[in-house]
Amino acid sequence: MTVTYSRRVADAGLGTFFHLLLRWKGSIYKLLYRELIIFTLLYYFFSVVYRFVLNDDQKRLFEKLSIYCDRYAELIPVSFVLGFYVTLVVSRWWGQFENVPWPDRLAALVGGHVRGADETSRLTRRTLMRYANLSGVLIYRSVSTAVYKRFPTMEHLVQAGLMTSEELRHLEDLPSPHNKFWVPCMWFVSLALRARTEGRINNDVALTALLTELNSLRAKCMKLYGYDWISLPLVYTQVATVAVYSFFLACLIGRQFLDPTQGYPGHEMDFYLPIFTLLQFFFYVGWLKVAEQLINPFGEDDDDFETNWLVDRNLQVSLLSVDEMYDSLPLVERDMYWNESEPQPPYTTASALNTANPPSWAQRWISGLMIFFFLSFFFFLLNKLAEHMSNLLFGLQCS
Amino acid sequence: MTVTYSRRVADAGLGTFFHLLLRWKGSIYKLLYRELIIFTLLYYFFSVVYRFVLNDDQKRLFEKLSIYCDRYAELIPVSFVLGFYVTLVVSRWWGQFENVPWPDRLAALVGGHVRGADETSRLTRRTLMRYANLSGVLIYRSVSTAVYKRFPTMEHLVQAGLMTSEELRHLEDLPSPHNKFWVPCMWFVSLALRARTEGRINNDVALTALLTELNSLRAKCMKLYGYDWISLPLVYTQVATVAVYSFFLACLIGRQFLDPTQGYPGHEMDFYLPIFTLLQFFFYVGWLKVAEQLINPFGEDDDDFETNWLVDRNLQVSLLSVDEMYDSLPLVERDMYWNESEPQPPYTTASALNTANPPSWAQRWISGLMIFFFLSFFFFLLNKLAEHMSNLLFGLQCS
Amino acid sequence: MTVTYSRRVADAGLGTFFHLLLRWKGSIYKLLYRELIIFTLLYYFFSVVYRFVLNDDQKRLFEKLSIYCDRYAELIPVSFVLGFYVTLVVSRWWGQFENVPWPDRLAALVGGHVRGADETSRLTRRTLMRYANLSGVLIYRSVSTAVYKRFPTMEHLVQAGLMTSEELRHLEDLPSPHNKFWVPCMWFVSLALRARTEGRINNDVALTALLTELNSLRAKCMKLYGYDWISLPLVYTQVATVAVYSFFLACLIGRQFLDPTQGYPGHEMDFYLPIFTLLQFFFYVGWLKVAEQLINPFGEDDDDFETNWLVDRNLQVSLLSVDEMYDSLPLVERDMYWNESEPQPPYTTASALNTANPPSWAQRWISGLMIFFFLSFFFFLLNKLAEHMSNLLFGLQCS
Amino acid sequence: MTVTYSRRVADAGLGTFFHLLLRWKGSIYKLLYRELIIFTLLYYFFSVVYRFVLNDDQKRLFEKLSIYCDRYAELIPVSFVLGFYVTLVVSRWWGQFENVPWPDRLAALVGGHVRGADETSRLTRRTLMRYANLSGVLIYRSVSTAVYKRFPTMEHLVQAGLMTSEELRHLEDLPSPHNKFWVPCMWFVSLALRARTEGRINNDVALTALLTELNSLRAKCMKLYGYDWISLPLVYTQVATVAVYSFFLACLIGRQFLDPTQGYPGHEMDFYLPIFTLLQFFFYVGWLKVAEQLINPFGEDDDDFETNWLVDRNLQVSLLSVDEMYDSLPLVERDMYWNESEPQPPYTTASALNTANPPSWAQRWISGLMIFFFLSFFFFLLNKLAEHMSNLLFGLQCS
Amino acid sequence: MTVTYSRRVADAGLGTFFHLLLRWKGSIYKLLYRELIIFTLLYYFFSVVYRFVLNDDQKRLFEKLSIYCDRYAELIPVSFVLGFYVTLVVSRWWGQFENVPWPDRLAALVGGHVRGADETSRLTRRTLMRYANLSGVLIYRSVSTAVYKRFPTMEHLVQAGLMTSEELRHLEDLPSPHNKFWVPCMWFVSLALRARTEGRINNDVALTALLTELNSLRAKCMKLYGYDWISLPLVYTQVATVAVYSFFLACLIGRQFLDPTQGYPGHEMDFYLPIFTLLQFFFYVGWLKVAEQLINPFGEDDDDFETNWLVDRNLQVSLLSVDEMYDSLPLVERDMYWNESEPQPPYTTASALNTANPPSWAQRWISGLMIFFFLSFFFFLLNKLAEHMSNLLFGLQCS
Repeated sequence: MTVTYSRRVADAGLGTFFHLLLRWKGSIYKLLYRELIIFTLLYYFFSVVYRFVLNDDQKRLFEKLSIYCDRYAELIPVSFVLGFYVTLVVSRWWGQFENVPWPDRLAALVGGHVRGADETSRLTRRTLMRYANLSGVLIYRSVSTAVYKRFPTMEHLVQAGLMTSEELRHLEDLPSPHNKFWVPCMWFVSLALRARTEGRINNDVALTALLTELNSLRAKCMKLYGYDWISLPLVYTQVATVAVYSFFLACLIGRQFLDPTQGYPGHEMDFYLPIFTLLQFFFYVGWLKVAEQLINPFGEDDDDFETNWLVDRNLQVSLLSVDEMYDSLPLVERDMYWNESEPQPPYTTASALNTANPPSWAQRWISGLMIFFFLSFFFFLLNKLAEHMSNLLFGLQCS
Repeated sequence: MTVTYSRRVADAGLGTFFHLLLRWKGSIYKLLYRELIIFTLLYYFFSVVYRFVLNDDQKRLFEKLSIYCDRYAELIPVSFVLGFYVTLVVSRWWGQFENVPWPDRLAALVGGHVRGADETSRLTRRTLMRYANLSGVLIYRSVSTAVYKRFPTMEHLVQAGLMTSEELRHLEDLPSPHNKFWVPCMWFVSLALRARTEGRINNDVALTALLTELNSLRAKCMKLYGYDWISLPLVYTQVATVAVYSFFLACLIGRQFLDPTQGYPGHEMDFYLPIFTLLQFFFYVGWLKVAEQLINPFGEDDDDFETNWLVDRNLQVSLLSVDEMYDSLPLVERDMYWNESEPQPPYTTASALNTANPPSWAQRWISGLMIFFFLSFFFFLLNKLAEHMSNLLFGLQCS
Repeated sequence: MTVTYSRRVADAGLGTFFHLLLRWKGSIYKLLYRELIIFTLLYYFFSVVYRFVLNDDQKRLFEKLSIYCDRYAELIPVSFVLGFYVTLVVSRWWGQFENVPWPDRLAALVGGHVRGADETSRLTRRTLMRYANLSGVLIYRSVSTAVYKRFPTMEHLVQAGLMTSEELRHLEDLPSPHNKFWVPCMWFVSLALRARTEGRINNDVALTALLTELNSLRAKCMKLYGYDWISLPLVYTQVATVAVYSFFLACLIGRQFLDPTQGYPGHEMDFYLPIFTLLQFFFYVGWLKVAEQLINPFGEDDDDFETNWLVDRNLQVSLLSVDEMYDSLPLVERDMYWNESEPQPPYTTASALNTANPPSWAQRWISGLMIFFFLSFFFFLLNKLAEHMSNLLFGLQCS
Repeated sequence: MTVTYSRRVADAGLGTFFHLLLRWKGSIYKLLYRELIIFTLLYYFFSVVYRFVLNDDQKRLFEKLSIYCDRYAELIPVSFVLGFYVTLVVSRWWGQFENVPWPDRLAALVGGHVRGADETSRLTRRTLMRYANLSGVLIYRSVSTAVYKRFPTMEHLVQAGLMTSEELRHLEDLPSPHNKFWVPCMWFVSLALRARTEGRINNDVALTALLTELNSLRAKCMKLYGYDWISLPLVYTQVATVAVYSFFLACLIGRQFLDPTQGYPGHEMDFYLPIFTLLQFFFYVGWLKVAEQLINPFGEDDDDFETNWLVDRNLQVSLLSVDEMYDSLPLVERDMYWNESEPQPPYTTASALNTANPPSWAQRWISGLMIFFFLSFFFFLLNKLAEHMSNLLFGLQCS
Repeated sequence: MTVTYSRRVADAGLGTFFHLLLRWKGSIYKLLYRELIIFTLLYYFFSVVYRFVLNDDQKRLFEKLSIYCDRYAELIPVSFVLGFYVTLVVSRWWGQFENVPWPDRLAALVGGHVRGADETSRLTRRTLMRYANLSGVLIYRSVSTAVYKRFPTMEHLVQAGLMTSEELRHLEDLPSPHNKFWVPCMWFVSLALRARTEGRINNDVALTALLTELNSLRAKCMKLYGYDWISLPLVYTQVATVAVYSFFLACLIGRQFLDPTQGYPGHEMDFYLPIFTLLQFFFYVGWLKVAEQLINPFGEDDDDFETNWLVDRNLQVSLLSVDEMYDSLPLVERDMYWNESEPQPPYTTASALNTANPPSWAQRWISGLMIFFFLSFFFFLLNKLAEHMSNLLFGLQCS
């Protein structure tokens, strides 16, 4: 259920990003509201205790405690830890996306190299692609909770048509305690070799190209498995989490509004609503939430990869590619620019307008104004001084 | 409408970057001026209210509020969040540019391997390249608003000569809900195979090389699609945006010039123009604008990739490559350095001057001066002390 | 004994990361508790000395020392050094994981290209894979303490069936002082060439593909060797370690609670438990521990790569791939979607629910509330001012 | 005119980097001295005005302004912006260097695969390499000002022997508004195909390898073109520039030495020379200059890539490779280690000394001393306390 | 003389990194002690002057100067500049290591594809590998001072058996002013082609694979050459160096202990030993030393790559690979797991213990304790408040 908002931010204009603040799905509000409510309640609990329950001596004690907490909370390097930690999580997240196995490239080769329009050839091509898809799904089942829910048992894969019961039996008969996602790859190899022997693949270069492509796919599956197996070290996650949570535990006490009549510096007013502490909560816990969401992108968060959609799309596209599309070719005819060496596809009026767009005088004017504006402060000062100097001179003349 | 300024900054001289400040197109002024005007108006609204509307008690209240806002606004880690966020956006932006599909490499192979000067061969070569281009345009249509505006319907692609109506019919007949950019790739495969059968491609190695190259192109299309589908997590964008906007909401109150007569520390003067707050607005919001502009580089911002130009250029160059340029070769004749083993292409006077440029005495002098300058403060102090010591000694002698 | 927690963090919810704080294995507590106990004991030692042993003059001296330590400890740039250092260590750690040699790709090629069902062919395939595995194990022995403990001598490798005694003799006869992990690779080459001569590998393309794949494996072994040989420069590690340790040495004195009656600023209360100093110890030393754990991921830390498991898994999978799985193919039969061009694998009820999940009115409500909440402070102020202005107006009317 | 100083910093010793400070060419002094002079003059202009021109009231005003500027200048996040910006520029700079096209690899293949010692074969090989070089030069002309100055018109390329006038005519006849650097690549393809037909290239694998290598070269040219076309977004450069320049505009006022008799905090003394402000100018503007110099590494800065040297070197080496070196082979004879399985090339005395270099007792002594030194402060304190305790005890005994 | 300490840090335990502090070779002490001594001497020189030479007025002046220096030294952004600069240097350092040319992959292909057991074949294989090694050594001579010392003239290479005098004559006859490391590569090509003609390499695929591999090696040599040629811009190095050195020049004055009787804030005590300034010197100059050491990893620093070892190792291993190991194959026999599909190599007792290691109750107990500990402060406060509340209630009852 990936949240795609690329189109909304295609052009940078007035408040492009501001519009994004009004979304709910995949938003920081959805992720944070429970934590924020809990934090606010705890904050007001302490506030109420301080204001209405404690007697004067206790208040003085609480105030000192509050000032102490406030001062030392600043020492917790939350920004640093989060900055480096989140950067790391994000790079792993994208690394995982880049290793999602797409069988498209393999499908092109299977469609091109496994020749023959008879049923066996068709069967071979479809089965080859099914194996490639099956291998991916077996990996998804072990890394993605969404796919696992969809195919809780191997039997579900049979029902879904991703494997036959015969294949399931073979798979289960294989004595190995390790993840068996590679088994369909070996079937692929065997079937490709058979196709070569039977002449459906008619040369060795093609066969090697096929196997190489299969191996790329397999390597990607392996990498996803590796990302799942070797998590980001738990210690790093704990350090970041403890830093953020303890900072806000300290803020519960340290950011209370203290009695203004006591004259503590920085506590001259009582606003009741600790707006800046809540904002900080927003940034810091929100930043941590970015990490929480991305650390395993194969879950069911709003921003996780839609693995189930991937399974469906890959199956359909790869079967289409090697079956319906096999040797299908629209009539090859001369294109529009047959005798033209400078083809110029036309523009629609809307897009054409966009290309010819010299800066208007208004824009130039604003640009000049801006530069003027920046330098103005500087010259304003120079001016003032010059004025004083002339005053001085006149003053000297007068006196 | 990419803004290219590489040539302006080829040499680092006095104020190289300063000249860049005077540009309008693609500039920070163009992106920011509306936000800046709104911010300034709001600032002066509060300023006017504070100075002329409020009574004395209310002023005292406002002053306390202002000091409170000023102090806590500093706690918002805008630099950190923006630094890491913008770095991430920039790396995605360049990643997208690196995956823009250029059909040049494929054109070289098609031109080289699909032999024959008859019309069918010519038709084959042109059609192969047209398919490769079409695949790219189909992806552009789904990721780039500029290309989408140019080709709002598939029919426009037919009118633009990128596909025939026959091909459009085939494409539409294909029952698949997913993006069909891969279909022309499969046509390419089919046509290449037919060319192999008909002997226009005369060996399997060439065929495999062609298909491999096609697959690289397809993988790049896939990646662009992936970048579009998997946006940067919304939460991260929201965290950065909220951090910046809330910082400046706080500044609206917190950076007001307070009555100097009240003697608040740091409020000794009233300059009316909050020059530093506006500068901060410039940096921080400008930095955020960098992200807004780059987060989707396929829009119509000043700095976005010119996808429509890409479509035109790629179509023309690839058709030229495989058609006009097919087997076209200027007369191969002996080059100038035929019997010379140390060829030395001449320099023009302008460039020759540049190579022989030993540091003049003036430069050495400045270099020495600089080092002198740096050490001077240090020796100045040593000197002072030595002087004092000699004074001391003389003083002792005198007394 | 890698600690995998991906599944626990699949979905970001209330306190997803909080649960991770309750784990022991691979946790910060397990790594830190000894250091923390030592630090706490030392802290209380100084505390007791200050409170009960020193006389008044000595106390004053200690207090000044403490304030001095506290002030200057802040100047040590622990966050910076650690941030950059740990980022570097983490990138090396992942670089090492990406170079772990998996023989899967090679197994697919051996299974595909080395033909023949007779015993010699089977022997060839098994031996080829055994060589590839042996090469990996020889590298592991030199980089991983865990594997070295398992196979302390080469004889253990023979006992484990990874090499024959004949092979061991060959290996030991080879006169070379350098690591011999590459020798099995050369055997692989010789055996592959023999298989080609005997026709078990029936074409040169396949042979070249096999050797290329072997070379990839070998390059990965080489890289692991390089990571082991070229450690992160000792100086960098020392700089980071000295920064952290000296910071906390300074804190032992500087963070003591001083006598509140002396009225030192920031020492108004005595809490006995230096909670924030301990928290800082947690973050900084914990962050350093991340580096300690990852700097050599082939040890026996909780979070290190399970190299012994890798050895077992790779041996089994590669032997299975080329032997049991050789030419094994389940009956190829029509799949479920034979005549369907839009296959749609079914969803289970659990997963289906997940896809159709429009934001409920409650969610929209919260989203709105949040935005409301953010803007409220701003309008609250506007409101206040408006109120004051109306007061003013009424005031004017009244007067 | 690249500045190479690798050799000067081969060994880290006392002041290795210090020596680099004394260089002029490519140095920070050469880049900065004009800006520094301007800044210093402006600074002293204000200084003179403040000291000698203004009357007392105006001085008080100026002082308040100065304090205001000083305080707010600190809020400009120059370090952050520059740190991230320069890192980005440096990574692009290196990316550009990595895409400089070297025709060496192609020359090896042309020399190996295009057989024949007759003149036509020689002509073919030379022409192929000339085409590859020409393609590079065409790109350099469009990205590098230095090469553009050397070859201001295409006619200059003909005079330099990089292309024939026949080829120039062909190039100009081609109707295309886009950069034509790819045309020589297509000629290369045509000529290679002709060589294949004529049997000079005697197999298809070799031909494909040649074309693949050509395509790598072409892809690199394309990437250079891309780097030139898609500059770093102007906005980012402007943000960094404005941040630095406005910081120093503020410093012109804010860092003036104010009258010490007025007793402003931090203005107790008047040193006339604002050494630290000048140092800051050095760092920050110097850092920005790093970016100015690297943002387009194809200019004529001291540190830019010497593209003209590249053109000469590549032309000569590639012609030599395929012509003089064609089938040239020194007599193949037995090497020194023919019957030795452990070859040990000798060391010179100088280098041999270096290998056997156990830490002397002096070194160990220093090492020990250092550790001692670090721990000394800690034990010094312990000691002091122990002393006090014993005093205490004796004191108790005495009393 | 690389310093390898991976094995020492295999497991993270109590003070893993602490042990590293006790090493001399490659340590921060060895690199820093001279600078540290100089700094300390200068510091005490100023200290002595201040304490014993200056008279009272001069002391007051010095004190003001010292406070001024201390305040502004803080403004120098040493951490930032160093953090980004060192990160850059480290990434270049590793980039250089990754481009060190290892001829292993090439040796495998030469050993596999150049067939024949007669002397000419043996000679061909040995010579091919010698050429590959020679190419590497020629590059090392131009980038590495250590190798250059070992082979100061080309004649030394002949004596070392890396080239014959015939080859040297050929090399010197070649008229080219540029680095000739690529010449042996061209010889390699010629010899490989001859071997192909003579049938020692019996197919074109193998020949192409060989040349491709050679080109990879050559590209790596080229990259090392590029790293040497294009140093990190001098300006960046100067900025970082000036930042660090000027910071410590300022510290020489600014961190003096001032007379406590003058009552300057932060100068209440005189400790004589400026421990924190020395620590800062340690971190910052140590960090800079990391850069000094890594900026050219081909020198003779303790942590530089052992290029001479590389030369020896590569020569021996590549000759062994293609000669002794040619077609050498231990008797191929059935492995231990011939009829077993789940091979389980045994564990030694030591390593077996390690795998089965459930958390003991003690560990769980500590884990619980830790969590308890973290939450304790929070509940302690809650408790206190509750207590006060009950007091309040009782107080109300009593009164």
